[in-house]
Amino acid sequence: MEEGRRINIGILGATGTVGQRFITLLSKHPWFIIHKLGASPRSAGKIYPKAANWKQATPIPSAVRQMVVHECKPDNFTDCAIVFSGLDADVAGDIEAAFRAADIALFSNAKNYRRDPHVPLIVPLVNPSHLSIIAQQRALHSPPLSKGFIVTNANCSTTGIVIPLAALEKAFGPLEQLLVTTMQAISGAGYPGVSSLDILDNIVPFISGEEEKIEWETLKILGGVVDDDRGLKSFDMHARHPLRVSAACNRVPVIDGHTATVSVRFAQRPPPSPQQVREALAAFTTDAQSLGCPSAPVHTISVHEEPDRPQPRLDRYYQEGAGVSVGRVRQCPVLDIKFVVLANNVSIGAATSSIINAELAVVKGVVQA
Amino acid sequence: MEEGRRINIGILGATGTVGQRFITLLSKHPWFIIHKLGASPRSAGKIYPKAANWKQATPIPSAVRQMVVHECKPDNFTDCAIVFSGLDADVAGDIEAAFRAADIALFSNAKNYRRDPHVPLIVPLVNPSHLSIIAQQRALHSPPLSKGFIVTNANCSTTGIVIPLAALEKAFGPLEQLLVTTMQAISGAGYPGVSSLDILDNIVPFISGEEEKIEWETLKILGGVVDDDRGLKSFDMHARHPLRVSAACNRVPVIDGHTATVSVRFAQRPPPSPQQVREALAAFTTDAQSLGCPSAPVHTISVHEEPDRPQPRLDRYYQEGAGVSVGRVRQCPVLDIKFVVLANNVSIGAATSSIINAELAVVKGVVQA
Amino acid sequence: MEEGRRINIGILGATGTVGQRFITLLSKHPWFIIHKLGASPRSAGKIYPKAANWKQATPIPSAVRQMVVHECKPDNFTDCAIVFSGLDADVAGDIEAAFRAADIALFSNAKNYRRDPHVPLIVPLVNPSHLSIIAQQRALHSPPLSKGFIVTNANCSTTGIVIPLAALEKAFGPLEQLLVTTMQAISGAGYPGVSSLDILDNIVPFISGEEEKIEWETLKILGGVVDDDRGLKSFDMHARHPLRVSAACNRVPVIDGHTATVSVRFAQRPPPSPQQVREALAAFTTDAQSLGCPSAPVHTISVHEEPDRPQPRLDRYYQEGAGVSVGRVRQCPVLDIKFVVLANNVSIGAATSSIINAELAVVKGVVQA
Amino acid sequence: MEEGRRINIGILGATGTVGQRFITLLSKHPWFIIHKLGASPRSAGKIYPKAANWKQATPIPSAVRQMVVHECKPDNFTDCAIVFSGLDADVAGDIEAAFRAADIALFSNAKNYRRDPHVPLIVPLVNPSHLSIIAQQRALHSPPLSKGFIVTNANCSTTGIVIPLAALEKAFGPLEQLLVTTMQAISGAGYPGVSSLDILDNIVPFISGEEEKIEWETLKILGGVVDDDRGLKSFDMHARHPLRVSAACNRVPVIDGHTATVSVRFAQRPPPSPQQVREALAAFTTDAQSLGCPSAPVHTISVHEEPDRPQPRLDRYYQEGAGVSVGRVRQCPVLDIKFVVLANNVSIGAATSSIINAELAVVKGVVQA
Repeated sequence: MEEGRRINIGILGATGTVGQRFITLLSKHPWFIIHKLGASPRSAGKIYPKAANWKQATPIPSAVRQMVVHECKPDNFTDCAIVFSGLDADVAGDIEAAFRAADIALFSNAKNYRRDPHVPLIVPLVNPSHLSIIAQQRALHSPPLSKGFIVTNANCSTTGIVIPLAALEKAFGPLEQLLVTTMQAISGAGYPGVSSLDILDNIVPFISGEEEKIEWETLKILGGVVDDDRGLKSFDMHARHPLRVSAACNRVPVIDGHTATVSVRFAQRPPPSPQQVREALAAFTTDAQSLGCPSAPVHTISVHEEPDRPQPRLDRYYQEGAGVSVGRVRQCPVLDIKFVVLANNVSIGAATSSIINAELAVVKGVVQA
Repeated sequence: MEEGRRINIGILGATGTVGQRFITLLSKHPWFIIHKLGASPRSAGKIYPKAANWKQATPIPSAVRQMVVHECKPDNFTDCAIVFSGLDADVAGDIEAAFRAADIALFSNAKNYRRDPHVPLIVPLVNPSHLSIIAQQRALHSPPLSKGFIVTNANCSTTGIVIPLAALEKAFGPLEQLLVTTMQAISGAGYPGVSSLDILDNIVPFISGEEEKIEWETLKILGGVVDDDRGLKSFDMHARHPLRVSAACNRVPVIDGHTATVSVRFAQRPPPSPQQVREALAAFTTDAQSLGCPSAPVHTISVHEEPDRPQPRLDRYYQEGAGVSVGRVRQCPVLDIKFVVLANNVSIGAATSSIINAELAVVKGVVQA
Repeated sequence: MEEGRRINIGILGATGTVGQRFITLLSKHPWFIIHKLGASPRSAGKIYPKAANWKQATPIPSAVRQMVVHECKPDNFTDCAIVFSGLDADVAGDIEAAFRAADIALFSNAKNYRRDPHVPLIVPLVNPSHLSIIAQQRALHSPPLSKGFIVTNANCSTTGIVIPLAALEKAFGPLEQLLVTTMQAISGAGYPGVSSLDILDNIVPFISGEEEKIEWETLKILGGVVDDDRGLKSFDMHARHPLRVSAACNRVPVIDGHTATVSVRFAQRPPPSPQQVREALAAFTTDAQSLGCPSAPVHTISVHEEPDRPQPRLDRYYQEGAGVSVGRVRQCPVLDIKFVVLANNVSIGAATSSIINAELAVVKGVVQA
Repeated sequence: MEEGRRINIGILGATGTVGQRFITLLSKHPWFIIHKLGASPRSAGKIYPKAANWKQATPIPSAVRQMVVHECKPDNFTDCAIVFSGLDADVAGDIEAAFRAADIALFSNAKNYRRDPHVPLIVPLVNPSHLSIIAQQRALHSPPLSKGFIVTNANCSTTGIVIPLAALEKAFGPLEQLLVTTMQAISGAGYPGVSSLDILDNIVPFISGEEEKIEWETLKILGGVVDDDRGLKSFDMHARHPLRVSAACNRVPVIDGHTATVSVRFAQRPPPSPQQVREALAAFTTDAQSLGCPSAPVHTISVHEEPDRPQPRLDRYYQEGAGVSVGRVRQCPVLDIKFVVLANNVSIGAATSSIINAELAVVKGVVQA
């Protein structure tokens, strides 16, 4: 980034839970300036504090206190170089398509386009190289685009898991099997989301669609981008070495922070030892850091030696929620290695991922800022 | 049981959490009469309500309101045909040995003798046949015993898991692999147990010794009793077909009810389908029922069709806590089948198991009532 | 009740939280038989288990498993001698009026008619004498009614408070001042009700309309029924001695059981001592008991001597939720006496009150059974 | 403070909950440098991370990672100009007396000396003028002291209440009556403190000694310091106008943040209106701010207009926990005005108060820095 340059950004779904996180994070961003806020027609025309039911522990940033909320129509956002979407899935499909068609660069937290064969699904600490497909996404659009595109980030539960897995594959080669049980925070369901009667003194061993997301998204994210004979790029879904993934997802009475117990089997025989795994996790660095993305964690993975960590309440703010915490790395009597991973679902699991993705796109010149 | 006969029983550790459960359950038992209560020297001599910090949702049963608490010495319990122990592990070892040496039949919830090669570790809905080792336990004692013995029940988290696994092995033959993640209630840690600062808005991905218990106890319980050349019996630890078990244990902010996500691999190829598994679980019956044990559940396993069950708050009182609930039976992309199991850790996971074990011992004539 | 006679009853709002409680309680009632279930048009025509999102800890009673849900129209309930309403306030107004107009006896848990000058607001352990206004309610209806009427019960938070206050007024004469702070369970808000994000690790110091209800309903309930010159009855709103009431209502992360801290000033000087208050509370008996209502608590108020009781989790099932618990009776340095009261908001605070009201109406001949 | 000057401070009870808060806050203090850490003999000699069971959401500050823990003996702290005590009450009495006798300036969070007639009990946003008694405390000590003294801060629940009350007395003159019900966080009980079995899905309507503290400390703090004929100073306990205080204290399942419902009666007739009260609260400023204490809140009281605020989870970090939040200011039908107040018990309710007290003592020259 050129010294002193600032980039106008817009936020769709600005009044929702994810939108509030975007505002909180972007209000103090060194590169990005919140320029436009978008929400539903019933919020449009109101100043932001009247439109939003603010639920963050810090007050509404002064930068948006006087801003008026607009409808989520591309015309209202033409002066934004980047638009972030925190829209709900039931409306994100059409709106995000319209923004891309209007040649706007859009970074979405919604699930709608994650399975699109031309849309990259990027966890910024794992697979920023997938930005390489954007040229093709633009070229295949009708009409072709010069600036517009959609980049999605992963489901909040997938995100926390793939980061240490990426570290392991980088150090020890491909994984063959992954068994994961998640214990997910209520904030992952948005607001009002989970009824208190369903979760106080309780857990719910089911989150609709969540296991399928983990089992599918993991393959797209950890897989590569390959070119066919005609030069067309596609996602290989980890085809270089098939990876079987089994997820069991649970909702637990935790406010923020998704915890998962993970067991993996490596292709490499013999597999690495727990100590080797610990060292590989602790040493893991990413492009987001080396390229100077301001929202990237300084350190990606905190490896705990204490027997009872990570815990969501104590560790979810690690690296302001942009890093992940791993603990209890030990041998698995059935697969090879098991461990516990904790990621902040409202930070790296959602808005922070979108923002680092945008930072990477700026640094790599995919966005013309 | 002969009509109208009642058996005097004693309770050790009567003031603690498990002891309070024994009292609640036994105060309305058709066969057993609470005759003596034992606790620590500082409680001895007090009437029960003064000695106990009662924490149950029902009041102290009238049958024990006037009872005096005694020290846990065999001399005080000679008129009890059966003694139940809810003692903490740090004192259970010596006291339980002394009771056995005094020729008293003792059913213990403590962990101390679970690994003893002559002590059966019995989940009453799974392996009551292991009572067959008691003759040997008595014979090898010095001096030999005529009535005394120790029977233990399993750890609360093991119990819930082995019941559906026993149903599966009964229907489909041996299991080869078991991967389990538990989400365990705070009551499993006793009182005061888990600090509220450690568990409110939090989970703790570690319970000391718990994973080892699940990985070891499962083998003893699901395994058989074999005779060697000299006629000596021993536990075969599932040697007929080696079973690898991997457990990851978590404490969650739930009051009662341990939930577990379970993945299993069968020896049989092809493995049973989810529907076959559901049917086998629902059809599972046990000796405890057919022999008329009054505390046995009428139905052992409730198989849920709803996608989001079982849940601890809604399902922990199934069969008054004596049955277990299973749901979400589906294929596992890594092993064969995965499902969710819920068991009430303070009922079938603790006192209720001990009581049904005693009922089985009476019915089978192991206890002379 | 004549031996063996059973009365057909209907339940409106049968699929909701209060309706589920009505079903649970009435499925084992000695006098009443659940004969018809009513709910919204989108539930009508379905069998009950398909229509209801059952959230009770006990399963759906077999008596209603095969019952079909009907629309809440009087024509569907003409063969019911009594109809209970667990309807939400937004629909209860018109529906309940229609049922009364169809000459049906209706006992409502909704707030809509509580302030009606001809409708009694009855806490069955406090003011069953207010049933005396029903003749007038029927006579003033156009056209006059022979069997129909509406009886309401109080708001769940009011109910718990007025029971001990009635005991105090019975023993020591009128109260002059009442200051109450409530800590109310989430179940009081229905389902889905309170979002978990609003109440986990939190309290909310506001419940819409609740303080006004306590401040107003208390006067109607504790007040008398007076006749004017023309023989018209009206509620005197405690006019025999003005009572000032101040309430502060809070939502807390408790599932069931409303707790309140209460300070009162008596008209009588000197005021009674804490010990006199304790004795008066413990001795309090009501018509509901002496008249043999089967759902009335055997003992109305449990007075705790322990310093830290009552607590919702330990005491909310006192008398199966039909009684209330009081503790910490002591002098108040500002008013006269202060204490803590706990009542089960889903039992005596809701469905149980309606049911005892109906039992009283049967016993007193107000309902022709 | 002179530019660039730094003051060495020590922390007693450094491994406990309050000690951990002292370390977190003081590790980034502009005036104070953590120089010595004191704890129990079993911690002495260990480096801090080995001695403490760290439970804060931020990691152990680097400044203390290598520090060795000492026994709490004055000899170990002679090079500290100020010592903060986070000791438990059962040991604080003797240790704090020894430190004062060694002529060390000590600011204590413990309760032991709060009722001492020569020890000021200071809520820094309320009564810093009470520091005036320190000269007398030193002079009456045997032998007289030149630098040493004890200053205490108030109980965590008292602190939050007296701040808005001080604002009201400043604006409208003396209060006559105060009725308060608290809903206190579990962190107020230290670690392990409240058992999770006592507070999950529960409240406990009793905290030992807490009501007495509020009823007594409020008078000392809001009262004045008066001189008798012989020039001896004493605390007048609000004798200029007697104030009756009645408190009801409850423990609730909230991690941090004590909420209270407060009703007050003013001496002034007619009393101020709710709007006048709101304005007086919002306008309240204190010496701690005007004298430039770096830990004082920029704004003391946040007055909420939203009907459902303050809430602990959303408002406890107001002013980094150094300010208090008030909402729902309205008329009280029994006394004059009622409102809700929230204060962060681990910040302004504990360590932050001690630190601002020390800052005030430095600014006023009571401590020779």
